[in-house]
Amino acid sequence: MKAKLQVGVLGFGTVGSGVIRILKEHQEKISQVTGYDITVKKVLVRDLEKNRRYEAEGFTLTTDPTDVLDDPEIAVVVEVMGSITTARNYILHALKAGKSVVTANKDLIAIHGDELVAVAQENHCDLFYEASVAGGIPILRTIVNSLAADRIKKVLGIVNGTTNYMLTQMTTSSKSYEEALKEAQDLGFAESDPTSDVDGIDAARKMVILTRLAFGMNVNLDDVKTKGIRGISQKDIAIASQLGYKVKLVGQAEEIDNTVDVAVGPVLLPAAHPLSGVNDENNAVFVTGAAVGETMFYGPGAGEMPTATSVVSDLITVAKNTKLGTIGNVFNRFVHETKYTPADKVFSKYYFRMQMNDKTGTFLKLTKIFADAGVSFDKILQEPNDKHTATVVIVSHAASRNQIEEAVDGVNKEPEMRLITQYAVVEG
Amino acid sequence: MKAKLQVGVLGFGTVGSGVIRILKEHQEKISQVTGYDITVKKVLVRDLEKNRRYEAEGFTLTTDPTDVLDDPEIAVVVEVMGSITTARNYILHALKAGKSVVTANKDLIAIHGDELVAVAQENHCDLFYEASVAGGIPILRTIVNSLAADRIKKVLGIVNGTTNYMLTQMTTSSKSYEEALKEAQDLGFAESDPTSDVDGIDAARKMVILTRLAFGMNVNLDDVKTKGIRGISQKDIAIASQLGYKVKLVGQAEEIDNTVDVAVGPVLLPAAHPLSGVNDENNAVFVTGAAVGETMFYGPGAGEMPTATSVVSDLITVAKNTKLGTIGNVFNRFVHETKYTPADKVFSKYYFRMQMNDKTGTFLKLTKIFADAGVSFDKILQEPNDKHTATVVIVSHAASRNQIEEAVDGVNKEPEMRLITQYAVVEG
Repeated sequence: MKAKLQVGVLGFGTVGSGVIRILKEHQEKISQVTGYDITVKKVLVRDLEKNRRYEAEGFTLTTDPTDVLDDPEIAVVVEVMGSITTARNYILHALKAGKSVVTANKDLIAIHGDELVAVAQENHCDLFYEASVAGGIPILRTIVNSLAADRIKKVLGIVNGTTNYMLTQMTTSSKSYEEALKEAQDLGFAESDPTSDVDGIDAARKMVILTRLAFGMNVNLDDVKTKGIRGISQKDIAIASQLGYKVKLVGQAEEIDNTVDVAVGPVLLPAAHPLSGVNDENNAVFVTGAAVGETMFYGPGAGEMPTATSVVSDLITVAKNTKLGTIGNVFNRFVHETKYTPADKVFSKYYFRMQMNDKTGTFLKLTKIFADAGVSFDKILQEPNDKHTATVVIVSHAASRNQIEEAVDGVNKEPEMRLITQYAVVEG
Repeated sequence: MKAKLQVGVLGFGTVGSGVIRILKEHQEKISQVTGYDITVKKVLVRDLEKNRRYEAEGFTLTTDPTDVLDDPEIAVVVEVMGSITTARNYILHALKAGKSVVTANKDLIAIHGDELVAVAQENHCDLFYEASVAGGIPILRTIVNSLAADRIKKVLGIVNGTTNYMLTQMTTSSKSYEEALKEAQDLGFAESDPTSDVDGIDAARKMVILTRLAFGMNVNLDDVKTKGIRGISQKDIAIASQLGYKVKLVGQAEEIDNTVDVAVGPVLLPAAHPLSGVNDENNAVFVTGAAVGETMFYGPGAGEMPTATSVVSDLITVAKNTKLGTIGNVFNRFVHETKYTPADKVFSKYYFRMQMNDKTGTFLKLTKIFADAGVSFDKILQEPNDKHTATVVIVSHAASRNQIEEAVDGVNKEPEMRLITQYAVVEG
């Protein structure tokens, strides 16, 4: 019989039960690759009565966190309960008790990751969080281990499954924003309060974590320029398609001269871009390295089993480290001073949809506003709405964020023009 | 100053010089993540005179392999010279001298991987070969570490850049096979003797390596059903496109009831399949796991810098292991008895293009041959060629390899029918 590695699980939702299921179903392989029988000893639940039926499963249910956190036989704690404050307290408690921790909690890692990593190091424990970004895609370990040889230049991520599902529905089935949201809610992808998904907050948290690993920089969530998909319209999706683009909610982190810029927002992607084919609730992270060039990692971004797979792969790493006596080595040693790219050094093409009074001289005025800001046009599309107004779509050449703001300010000052939408355009 | 980890490089072609360049250009990051200055001490070359200009680079050039293999200061040997017999001898020599080895040599690893892994283990050395499959894509480490928690069901790989480039040209620019081959040769993707690429041998070798890691089984190269793209015609690509498919050279390894089947050949992929968007010389590996579902890893399959990135990421792992005192642990511990799936248990849809005499009763005969073999039709396309013959295309429902062979034998016996091409069809 193999040695036992005993695990305590905090939270018994879909991911928690997925972890228990995978440890059981893939026991033989896991035991072969780690040399341990990894078994769940205790599970923290909210309500004992509701979970009575699991009593025969070989683990104990408890509502008292210290039952798990102070059990000397438990070597690893898996945190899959969510929330920030309570989860942080429990994880700190576990680490200080000398237990390694695996968590799927992106909100927590985005905000307190740095502190938790430091406490893990002080206490010679492992802390892994592969499941916190892009569910079943092993993107964090890939960046830290496999791309360690390279200098990463840019990370583009479709890292929120709910909004990607909605945009796919709006694109392929011409659904409205409201219909797509309702459908995502009915399918359980979106919560009843979808704020964190549709306003890009969830994606921004994941970009904070990716930026930390890819560029060694700790950006604040508040410094991620974040825009969601709320109110995105069929009209923009149709025009984008006509111009050869797909609309996706994309997180972009780019290194420019040892500074970094991180943004989340709807963007237009060239139809042939590998990210354009990422549909439904899938996620993908597109990484450009100085040496390797363009790579992409694609898979399910959420869901019980994919997320649980990432949690268990972290558990396997803890087990291997236990075997080798190498617990407590820092996962990511790549650290750089955090500096933000100034707005005059962040360049992108942009898409603008405007409504203009259809009278002589207005378009000339528009051209002048953009020219004064130093923004030149790549594509122009104009069509009449009615007798008095026209829709004008501009795709600009690459311009700095400052230049774009200047042009937008100019447009907003003119009563004959109304800027309706403005999205970044990714180059092919 | 950090401790030095000294490297000997066997071979100074594009990958070898890429490795040297990356170690130099990314020195700061590599030193931060490993705690070592990884430096190249000696490089084995064929011709000293030709490489005189590198003398000032800080390493010694030699034409004598023992200069590298017996140097006690060299801790790691990088083999990027290619060939099988000589490379095998040098690697065995290095391992027996207690040096860890990193190789990009797929031919060698496909054939002698098992022996080399055993010798590395006996001598407590590391042996890594990430660059041997799919160049810059870290697929081996992903399968072994990140998907360790899962049971892999199926691996589909576009793992040969040359043929993928050719098929992309034939599809997007309607080039003929000969034109596409010539272009690949002019661009340096294909060798003057393209046999190993166009006959699928290179892809088969990579599938042997992927199968070993994904399913823990050691299949023989001879047991991989291998078919190349030689003689593939514009006509099949056009018909496939009409039916909603792309033609790609795909390696397929599938586990069925603890047995495995591995095949390489041109297949029809549904246009919406993520592998269908993998164009030009890029590679991608599509992995289906019991728990994680469908994931894909995409990137450059070859080229100096991408391949060198994978080699250096292996060097970084050796350096980390040296630091932790964990050199000599087996990379892949997942081992299963190798059993092949019998031909009546391997199912697939198939595409057939035939030429038939256009006379009454021939189609009925064809229908009967397929029905007798137990193969039913999903799609049928018939168009006249001239007064006497017609082209008939059949896409079958899934049938076993035995059933397909029976149907093919039946067609081949009929003088009124001629089977021109026959490809597997991947389901969406």
